[in-house]
Amino acid sequence: METLKVIKIGGNIIDDAIALENFLMEFSKIEGPKILVHGGGKLATKLAEQMQVEVQMVEGRRITNAETLDIITMVYAGKINKNIVAALQKNSCNSIGFTGADGNTIVSVKRPIKEIDYGFAGDVTYINTKVLETLLNNHITPVFCAITHDKNGQLLNTNADTIASELAIAFAKKYQTQLYYCFEKNGVLLDVHNDDSVVENINQEKYQELLKEEIIADGMLPKLNNCFHAIDQKVDKVCIGKSEMLYNQNSKFTTIQAS
Amino acid sequence: METLKVIKIGGNIIDDAIALENFLMEFSKIEGPKILVHGGGKLATKLAEQMQVEVQMVEGRRITNAETLDIITMVYAGKINKNIVAALQKNSCNSIGFTGADGNTIVSVKRPIKEIDYGFAGDVTYINTKVLETLLNNHITPVFCAITHDKNGQLLNTNADTIASELAIAFAKKYQTQLYYCFEKNGVLLDVHNDDSVVENINQEKYQELLKEEIIADGMLPKLNNCFHAIDQKVDKVCIGKSEMLYNQNSKFTTIQAS
Repeated sequence: METLKVIKIGGNIIDDAIALENFLMEFSKIEGPKILVHGGGKLATKLAEQMQVEVQMVEGRRITNAETLDIITMVYAGKINKNIVAALQKNSCNSIGFTGADGNTIVSVKRPIKEIDYGFAGDVTYINTKVLETLLNNHITPVFCAITHDKNGQLLNTNADTIASELAIAFAKKYQTQLYYCFEKNGVLLDVHNDDSVVENINQEKYQELLKEEIIADGMLPKLNNCFHAIDQKVDKVCIGKSEMLYNQNSKFTTIQAS
Repeated sequence: METLKVIKIGGNIIDDAIALENFLMEFSKIEGPKILVHGGGKLATKLAEQMQVEVQMVEGRRITNAETLDIITMVYAGKINKNIVAALQKNSCNSIGFTGADGNTIVSVKRPIKEIDYGFAGDVTYINTKVLETLLNNHITPVFCAITHDKNGQLLNTNADTIASELAIAFAKKYQTQLYYCFEKNGVLLDVHNDDSVVENINQEKYQELLKEEIIADGMLPKLNNCFHAIDQKVDKVCIGKSEMLYNQNSKFTTIQAS
């Protein structure tokens, strides 16, 4: 079974022009089929300020009204996505930028209103791998931004971590799938202030231990729940760490596997 | 030889939400392989105003500085392109949005500075049809916005009419290619104030006549030069008129053919 790498990058790379350039150069060298998923970083908030559109946040989540959705579509699918694709082409990595609407690849449903109305936020319902597989077979790398659609004409803002894990899960039947979450730390840390205190391997048993010891909390909780969801759905392994883990053999990071 | 339709729409459709919705519904019904190319309309200018970026125009052409290129990328490749793709998916027309950077499909060169520095404006140098052919064979419709790249990491603003004609030309070897320019009039008019005075057929001979009689002037001149360039390069026919020409058998429009 061939290996497919699904790699997600976030604000710490997106917002730093030099870090992004370096990352894309290294990403281009990765052999075999791969998919890149990128978050939005701070650019959308900056544009909203320039356009005097108020950004509403509830519990750390952006509320996506119509104006905010327009801004996200412009920044994520336009500026960030297309500049990434152009940079990959420069590095001879043939790529095509995607939202979930393109090729009808990621269909989602507008999040139901319970206590909070998140507006145009989408929860992924299914992934169509066919077009993506055709492209991967032709050595073309799909580059996803964090936007999906409802198949009824509506674009929807969707969490980039979730897009990455759902893509990895959808491909787990056809490929040995590896999911990489690149962020600003070396992985899961025993001591949050010490970047060398990396927990190198986590399985379900170790996870329960770390939870009991309250080593995993706050922002890491949803991230790790996402990881174990992917592992449960037959993704081969999930790695969390700095993007260097993809190309620097000496870098430390956390690997999450079933056992 | 199969027929491929390359269809370009401009501001009169893009800027009118209802006209756009109707057009995309009709476009979705067109059978056989097709490519949609869209211009930008007034949205980019509006966003530039909101962001207080000055739009510089010289002889009707936008000067694309770095800030303007960002705006164009956000509006053309983001907001307009992705909403068109989502609307096509609603109409069960599977499509993928493209800039020339995506799939390395349209490579251009930054326009050399002569009397005027147009900034980040690109003149098309070549088209890679391979990925697009694969998609067309899989019944997927590419949707192009008017942005290309220089294969060196730089996105470039490119005339949408030119993108449409260059795509049609590039495919003329593989398909019987038809190019449709949709705009606000019924085609080439004998009397510019009378939308019924359509010249229904123009060949090279008729064109010279019309030029002599000064019936073709101003904005129509570059448009028709574009058309004859395509005809010279083996495009089967070029049609100019309202978008209704694509689906309303009673509508009048101008057809340009070699003879």
